[in-house]
Amino acid sequence: MTATEGRAATALADAIEARDAAAFVHVGDRSDAALRYLAGPALPDRPSAFLLSATGERLLCPPPGAASAARAVFDGTVVSADSVDGSAPGERAAAVLAERDVVGTVLTTATIPHAAALYLDRAGYEVASTDALDEARALKTAGEIERLRSVQTAATAGIARAEALLAGADRGDDGETLVHADDVLTTGVLRRAVNAALARAGVDPAGNTLIASGAAWSDPAFGSDDPIRAGDPVLVDLAPRDAAGYHGRLARTFVVDTDGGWDRRAHLAVTRAREAGLAELETGTSASRVHEETAAEVIAYGFDTVGEARTDGTRALGHGVGLARREAPWLSGSGELEPGHVVALVPTVFDQEENGGVRIADLAVVTADGYDLLAEYATSLSPTVE
Amino acid sequence: MTATEGRAATALADAIEARDAAAFVHVGDRSDAALRYLAGPALPDRPSAFLLSATGERLLCPPPGAASAARAVFDGTVVSADSVDGSAPGERAAAVLAERDVVGTVLTTATIPHAAALYLDRAGYEVASTDALDEARALKTAGEIERLRSVQTAATAGIARAEALLAGADRGDDGETLVHADDVLTTGVLRRAVNAALARAGVDPAGNTLIASGAAWSDPAFGSDDPIRAGDPVLVDLAPRDAAGYHGRLARTFVVDTDGGWDRRAHLAVTRAREAGLAELETGTSASRVHEETAAEVIAYGFDTVGEARTDGTRALGHGVGLARREAPWLSGSGELEPGHVVALVPTVFDQEENGGVRIADLAVVTADGYDLLAEYATSLSPTVE
Repeated sequence: MTATEGRAATALADAIEARDAAAFVHVGDRSDAALRYLAGPALPDRPSAFLLSATGERLLCPPPGAASAARAVFDGTVVSADSVDGSAPGERAAAVLAERDVVGTVLTTATIPHAAALYLDRAGYEVASTDALDEARALKTAGEIERLRSVQTAATAGIARAEALLAGADRGDDGETLVHADDVLTTGVLRRAVNAALARAGVDPAGNTLIASGAAWSDPAFGSDDPIRAGDPVLVDLAPRDAAGYHGRLARTFVVDTDGGWDRRAHLAVTRAREAGLAELETGTSASRVHEETAAEVIAYGFDTVGEARTDGTRALGHGVGLARREAPWLSGSGELEPGHVVALVPTVFDQEENGGVRIADLAVVTADGYDLLAEYATSLSPTVE
Repeated sequence: MTATEGRAATALADAIEARDAAAFVHVGDRSDAALRYLAGPALPDRPSAFLLSATGERLLCPPPGAASAARAVFDGTVVSADSVDGSAPGERAAAVLAERDVVGTVLTTATIPHAAALYLDRAGYEVASTDALDEARALKTAGEIERLRSVQTAATAGIARAEALLAGADRGDDGETLVHADDVLTTGVLRRAVNAALARAGVDPAGNTLIASGAAWSDPAFGSDDPIRAGDPVLVDLAPRDAAGYHGRLARTFVVDTDGGWDRRAHLAVTRAREAGLAELETGTSASRVHEETAAEVIAYGFDTVGEARTDGTRALGHGVGLARREAPWLSGSGELEPGHVVALVPTVFDQEENGGVRIADLAVVTADGYDLLAEYATSLSPTVE
C-alpha cells in the first residue's frame, strides 16, 4: 500500500466508523482522480470498482480480462470479473459485498456514476456520500509534494521557452506583429513550442496550455492561432500533468515593448497581489482570507478582480492542486489551511474590451510556519533571456 | 448549434419520445466526453448541467460566476447560477425543470454523477438511463472525421520521430544497448522525444504514450525509463488528443537488428491480422466479426491473441475512437458497422515471459463500401529513414 493509499484507507475507515456504515465503494476509470488516489495510476482503462470493508479489507473489481494487470499494480484483494456475477463494476461491487454478508449503509464519493450507485441501492444497501476522500486528498504526503514540485519545475521549462521566443522576436513589416526567425509569431506557434518544451521536460500539457494575446483570451479548447503584437500582454498559463496524474500550475504574462501604461499597472497589481496572498499562506489561516487579501490588493490598484478570464464577477484567486487540476482546499471555503495543503495562487486582472489580461500563478505548499514555493520563476513583464 | 450538438439533440429527442420521458439531463465538467459532445469543448472547468426538454429547448446550468463564459460558447439557454436555487449543478437542473413545470421521467446518461441523479430523484423525478447519446457519438459527422483525420496525421509525426531515433541508433560498448548521439537510448528518452513531436504537430500526448521495450511492457502511468537493446521489439503506441478532445490511435513496433526469429513471425502475424481486419470493415458487417477475423489470423500464425498487453485472455482487437479514447462501436458487440463508425484496429501478440510484444494499430472510418484509413504509415519492422 502506498502512502496515499494508506491515507485514503485511514480516512475512509474513520468515516465508516463515524457514520456506522458497512463499507465504502467508488467506481471510476483510469482517468478518474479519486480512483487513482485509492488504487494507483496504472489501472485498466475501463471502469473498476474499489471497495473498503468495515474490517479494513481493500478490494478492486477490475473489468473483464484485466485481473492479472490489476494484480500487478494493486496490493489488496483483486476480484476477477469471471469469479463474480455482474456485467458492470457497480453490479460486481454489490455482489462482492453480498458474498461477504455485508449489510447496512455503503458510503460513496459524490462522483460515483449513478448507474453504479443504483446497483448498490437495488441490492438493498443504503447509499450515502462522504467527502472524506476529498479532504484526505487535500493534505499531500511527502511523496506527493515531491511529485508536484517536479511537475511544477517542468512547467518552468514551458514558461522559459515562451519567454525566450518573445525575447527573441522582432517587429514585422507592419511595425506591430511579432516575427521570430522570419515567421509570424502567433498564439498557435507559441503554444506548440511551449507544449513541446513541456513534453521534453517529461510532463504532459494535458490540454491546459492557455496562450492568449491582447483582449482575445480565447479558450485553449479552440486552439487559437492569432498573431501576437508588440505592446499586447501575452499570457502563458500552464497546468501540465505528470505520468501519475499530478498537476502543476504556473502562469506568467509578458509584453514585448510595453509602453508602461495599463499593462504595467496591471502587472504591478497582480505582482503585489501575489505577494499579499503568499504572505497569508500558513497553517491556521482561513482559506478564504488568502483570496480576500489577494483580491484586496488588486482592487487597491484600481482594478476589478476576476479569478479566471471571462467570468461574471469575483471568484477565488486560487485553488488546491493535485490529482485534479483544481481540488480542495477551496479558497472560497471556510476551512483553515493545514501543513501539506498545496495551493495555486492565481491573481488576475482582465479587461475584455481593450487591453486583455494579466495573470501570474504559482504553486506553494503550506508549512507549519509559512509556505514553500514548489518552483521559482521570475515575474518580470518584459521578456528577457540570460 | 454545431453538427454534433444537433445530432445529440435529435437522438435524445427520439429517446425522450420513445420512453415517454419529460427531459434529458447530464452533468459533467469540461473533461467529460458526453458534456463536450452535448455543449462543446470550451465549457467551464467546474461541473455544468445540460438539459434537453421534451419541447426541444437546450439549457446549460454552468457553475457560479461562469454564465457569461458559457454564453460565449453555448447557443441554447444559459441559466446563471445566481438566477436559480441550488449549490450543485444537479440541484440547479432540478430547480430549472420544476420552474418549467416539467413532471415525469428524466433520462440521464449512465455516467451522470450519483449526487446529481439524487437531486433529480428527491425533486420527484423518475430517473432512467439511456444509451442514446453513446450511440449517437459512435456515428461521426463529417466535421468529426476531419478532426480525427487531423489528430491521426499528427500521430504519424510521433511514430516518425521514434523511427528516426531508432534508425539512427548504434550499439553501445556492451554490444547490445542502443545509443543515440552518445546518449543511451531509453524508453524515457524515446517517450519524451515522441511527445515533443506530437506537441509540435499540435496535439496533446494525453498521458497515453506507451513506449515499451522487450518483455517489460510497463504501464505509461509509471513513466518507465529502461535502456533499449538491439534485437528487442520496441512498441510505440500513441493515442494523442486534439484541442476539442478527439483522439487518434496509431501504433508501430520496431526492432533494431532483428534476428529474423520470434519478432519477425509475430510482426508478420499482426500485419496479416491488420489486413484481415481492415478487409472486414464495411457497412453491414457485424462488429464482432472484425475482431474474430483479426484474431483468427493471429492464431493461424501460432500465437495467442491479446487485445492489450497483460490481460487474462482474448479481448477485442480494436474499439471505436472519438471524444473518448475508447468508445462505441465495441468490436465485442452484436451491432453492425455503419458509415461514420470510426474504428481502431489493434492486432497484438504478447509474450510476457521472454520476447515482449508486437502491435500495429490504425484508425479507419467505415464507408458505404469499405473503409478509409485516417492516416497512412508504413508497417515495416526495421526502422528506416528516407
